[in-house]
Amino acid sequence: MIPGRLLVTEVCLLGSSCERRIPIRFRPTPEALRNLVMAAKGELKSDIIVKGGDLVDVILGDIRERVNIAVWGGHVVRIGYFDIDKYRGDNTLIIDASSAEAVVPGFIDPHVHIESSLLTPTGFAKAVIPHGTTTVAADPHEIGNVLGVEGVKYFIEESRCVPMRIFLYAPSCVPPTKAGLDTPGEVIDVEGIKELIEYEEVIGLGEVMDFISVTNGDLEYMEKIATALNAGKIADGHAPQLPSEMLVPYAAAWIRGDHESVFLDEALTKLRNGMRVLIREGSAWQDLEELSKLLTFMKISTRYLTFATDDIEVLDLLAEGHMDRVLRRAVSHGIDPITAVQMATLNAAEYLKLEEVGAIAPGRFADIVILEDFLRFRVRDVIIGGKLVWSRGSFIGGFGEYRYPERARRTMNVASAPRPEDLLIKVPEDAKAAKVLAIKAIPGKAITRSEEITAPAVNGYLRLPEGDVAHIAVIERHHATGNIGRGFVTGLGLRVGALAQTIAHDVHNIVTVGKDPADMARAVKELIDLGGGMVAVMAGKVVGKVPLPIAGLVSDEDPEVVAERLRDYIEALKGMGANFHAIFMTVALLPLPVIPEVRVTDKGMVNVLEGKIINPIKEIIR
Amino acid sequence: MIPGRLLVTEVCLLGSSCERRIPIRFRPTPEALRNLVMAAKGELKSDIIVKGGDLVDVILGDIRERVNIAVWGGHVVRIGYFDIDKYRGDNTLIIDASSAEAVVPGFIDPHVHIESSLLTPTGFAKAVIPHGTTTVAADPHEIGNVLGVEGVKYFIEESRCVPMRIFLYAPSCVPPTKAGLDTPGEVIDVEGIKELIEYEEVIGLGEVMDFISVTNGDLEYMEKIATALNAGKIADGHAPQLPSEMLVPYAAAWIRGDHESVFLDEALTKLRNGMRVLIREGSAWQDLEELSKLLTFMKISTRYLTFATDDIEVLDLLAEGHMDRVLRRAVSHGIDPITAVQMATLNAAEYLKLEEVGAIAPGRFADIVILEDFLRFRVRDVIIGGKLVWSRGSFIGGFGEYRYPERARRTMNVASAPRPEDLLIKVPEDAKAAKVLAIKAIPGKAITRSEEITAPAVNGYLRLPEGDVAHIAVIERHHATGNIGRGFVTGLGLRVGALAQTIAHDVHNIVTVGKDPADMARAVKELIDLGGGMVAVMAGKVVGKVPLPIAGLVSDEDPEVVAERLRDYIEALKGMGANFHAIFMTVALLPLPVIPEVRVTDKGMVNVLEGKIINPIKEIIR
Repeated sequence: MIPGRLLVTEVCLLGSSCERRIPIRFRPTPEALRNLVMAAKGELKSDIIVKGGDLVDVILGDIRERVNIAVWGGHVVRIGYFDIDKYRGDNTLIIDASSAEAVVPGFIDPHVHIESSLLTPTGFAKAVIPHGTTTVAADPHEIGNVLGVEGVKYFIEESRCVPMRIFLYAPSCVPPTKAGLDTPGEVIDVEGIKELIEYEEVIGLGEVMDFISVTNGDLEYMEKIATALNAGKIADGHAPQLPSEMLVPYAAAWIRGDHESVFLDEALTKLRNGMRVLIREGSAWQDLEELSKLLTFMKISTRYLTFATDDIEVLDLLAEGHMDRVLRRAVSHGIDPITAVQMATLNAAEYLKLEEVGAIAPGRFADIVILEDFLRFRVRDVIIGGKLVWSRGSFIGGFGEYRYPERARRTMNVASAPRPEDLLIKVPEDAKAAKVLAIKAIPGKAITRSEEITAPAVNGYLRLPEGDVAHIAVIERHHATGNIGRGFVTGLGLRVGALAQTIAHDVHNIVTVGKDPADMARAVKELIDLGGGMVAVMAGKVVGKVPLPIAGLVSDEDPEVVAERLRDYIEALKGMGANFHAIFMTVALLPLPVIPEVRVTDKGMVNVLEGKIINPIKEIIR
Repeated sequence: MIPGRLLVTEVCLLGSSCERRIPIRFRPTPEALRNLVMAAKGELKSDIIVKGGDLVDVILGDIRERVNIAVWGGHVVRIGYFDIDKYRGDNTLIIDASSAEAVVPGFIDPHVHIESSLLTPTGFAKAVIPHGTTTVAADPHEIGNVLGVEGVKYFIEESRCVPMRIFLYAPSCVPPTKAGLDTPGEVIDVEGIKELIEYEEVIGLGEVMDFISVTNGDLEYMEKIATALNAGKIADGHAPQLPSEMLVPYAAAWIRGDHESVFLDEALTKLRNGMRVLIREGSAWQDLEELSKLLTFMKISTRYLTFATDDIEVLDLLAEGHMDRVLRRAVSHGIDPITAVQMATLNAAEYLKLEEVGAIAPGRFADIVILEDFLRFRVRDVIIGGKLVWSRGSFIGGFGEYRYPERARRTMNVASAPRPEDLLIKVPEDAKAAKVLAIKAIPGKAITRSEEITAPAVNGYLRLPEGDVAHIAVIERHHATGNIGRGFVTGLGLRVGALAQTIAHDVHNIVTVGKDPADMARAVKELIDLGGGMVAVMAGKVVGKVPLPIAGLVSDEDPEVVAERLRDYIEALKGMGANFHAIFMTVALLPLPVIPEVRVTDKGMVNVLEGKIINPIKEIIR
């Protein structure tokens, strides 16, 4: 793969807020339409002519050999076999595509969480543009949980600084439940959705995860959906393995599609109920191999099928790519390459209700990718909005620099750094031990189980027994409430030390796990001083850290810088007995009180199925 | 074929303007969405359950056997294999589809001129619903030319009285040119388009016929297009055989598609330029056999292909049907029947940007057709908007009665009924004859040629020479200007008598042709008294007439009444030596000053290529 070499950046003149680098939607005026007509006739000279490429025609589903493409004012104005001299002016850039294997529309990811890359929208754009991605629709619900509507607006503002189309969803489920089981940073209510939906960068309502409320006909959710639909926008879904009794009402509420299908039958049922299926292939969740059978075995009509990455982190982006990675895998699973390109372009655009992108045709935006190698989807040049943005290993022109306001950088509002004993479960002074419920973690899976263990007591605090058990504590960090939830977790494989992180779904308080309370306290202290991120401590010494200063979730440094730090952190974790991918994701989900069976939030231990805070102590042994 | 038996009508309580019988668009409110959710769960009992039918799934492109469909409040709320008892209430209508061959979404005609049927929207609906058509998008540019924006509004109002979805286009080209070569009834300018586009019944801008203005970047046309696009609606096209130098700028102006493709290569070029192709199969223009090769030979992706009838008259509608006729023919030309159904449903809905129709799925409108015979598309039952509208040969429930205002019925504003000599070309009293340019008509074709003939003069008026020549006169009827244009026409085959008609494209003045000036004057007088339509006179006697009182274009009587009159009229014409289909269409187009070579309008003879009025007299012979 071609790594994302980042050569040029420029500071946006506006300082903290950029003017749009490229128009994100086409707003037709009489003059704009006339210009397109004049440029289509060659009376306005082209900005770019892509010459002699083999064009993948996603409308007809075939390849046209050696065609020319004229681009003016951000739009394609002519394709086919025409005399380029008529379109060439003094400043026309001629790009010879005859030695490349294919010319395709820019790739589209219709459902992704940028925060999962650990990058800001700028860093994300730097990582994905070299891989041919020209449009994404990102659900910023992680930053939304920390910073609310304001956080989403930061992403909207920043999206204007990058030379690609980053659309944002208005996050529907901030916080994810109404049960009050934890302390969120912010709430996005119906009024917030109404405010956000007006932005042209906002593509619709973000994945509606609270399918319980939807299928109960909860009027607040109904109003959120109606707000998106009445703005002519979409409502994105999240319906993992719902039985028909729930899926059908969910579809009837005009949720357009979802990316959670894992099984063939599940995907088919959604399609049969009129929902579109986004086949997910992210860092951790990979459904493409199974769902490719919809095409290869079942040969169904493909127009309602597209791809999405959902969650993909920076190391995967740099090492393997983005939608090009998905396309490469699709072809390796037997999907016809032209169909795969249709799915990643035209079908995705139709999912998002974007008519300006998804195909290379007169009047549409000029988002064009030139592939050196068609079946391996190796990208040579990327044109976005009629500008050559990336070519043969380098960015052309560059990015604005979005400066986050202080509020985004100061999200560590902790009452006081906890002492080691603050992180332990307290028992009466005379207790010798206690029987307690621990979280049984299952690395690589989102669900947990509960497990009863016996923990020794020393001076009124529960300590670790022998075996694969660690302390866990969740420290509220948004409102300085002083809340700390405490418990035990088994199955993480941690041998020594401690780690702490501010990625702690979905409200992103501080979660720390460790073998040694002093190391835990040290890690939390370091994390607070860092302003958020990930910290590993062993024997009182900080052995790894990844600063994520924006909302405690993402870094505004370049992808390669973040990747380098992450690599070092992963190495440090190995020394502590922990596999990064397993422990990072698992720990991040331990505070999430909506996935069974037991969790720890800043309010204490949660029985998810009962939806309430419980006392983990079952019995005191004196 | 099953004829459209019309058993039940009811007078709309509102008198001249009905409340909508069915909602034409879904307007999501929180309550509406909740109701759909509740109905999808069976907590609101279904209005209709279609039981055990074999459903053509246009999303997957297959057939699901013996499924149930629950309908509530106008929408589909559940499909699949479920226990119908949960959905059945005291008033639920159970429709057994197990003995029928297929259940399909209602058919959609995305481009039709209702006026060409000689029926009002009510009559048209009565004719097409029995054939499974549930949605049409009609361009009312004929009535627009006579009655302007008001005329379009009459159709909009009337569309609310019928139990099907009739969308209207805002006609883009009223009058068809700006050259002032004739006297139109009304003009629809940009302001008119802006007013019309706001109606929810208006689907977009009607076929943009003036491709010269579009490809010149004419700002008035650009503004009309922009008005439609900015309202989230479409701009429908008309681009017959344009060379690429014109087609590409036309496509670049965001015209969505067109129905004028006659040749395979023409259709391909439009598709390659991002335009959708509506394969036309009307009464006179039939392109399906040729264009079916896009699918059968070339096997292209079909999502940008759909069907349209454009112009289809009442006799064809009653004898052969509407979209069912097109589908039957599509299958006979080798198109896969499921693909054909996709084209006539989902693809047409996507062309029109209607998400509520085109597929049978939870949340969408319940427009469902039960077919007795799948491959012959024989319709048994038609459900529109969740109501059983037509079943086993009869309408259920009925239609409102739209009462046209007097203005629509009084469109014959003629200075005075012309005397026979008023219809003849005047020459000096002493002239013996004259050499004149005549229109050479080519029955069945739209183009004409000019031909020089020598006509004898009697008492200062030119009379007919021997041979296949007739007088032609066009009498202005909108503004009582007294304008009469006069000339000769050859090639019509008329032997005796005269005919007069108010269908005279595109501004619809009175056109009369005849062998005998007295018969012509009699026919015009009768036509004026009739309030518009078609009249045939032989030897001073009216031998046939078809009253078309609404704008002189359509009849508000039932389709079978109009059909019966038309049949009698055709018989009468045969007695005069004229073949109806040839003479009616040809005469209707003789005043149209935009198709070469010569025409006669109320202002006189027109040289189309020069775009001016000319004197037909070349030489006076004394």
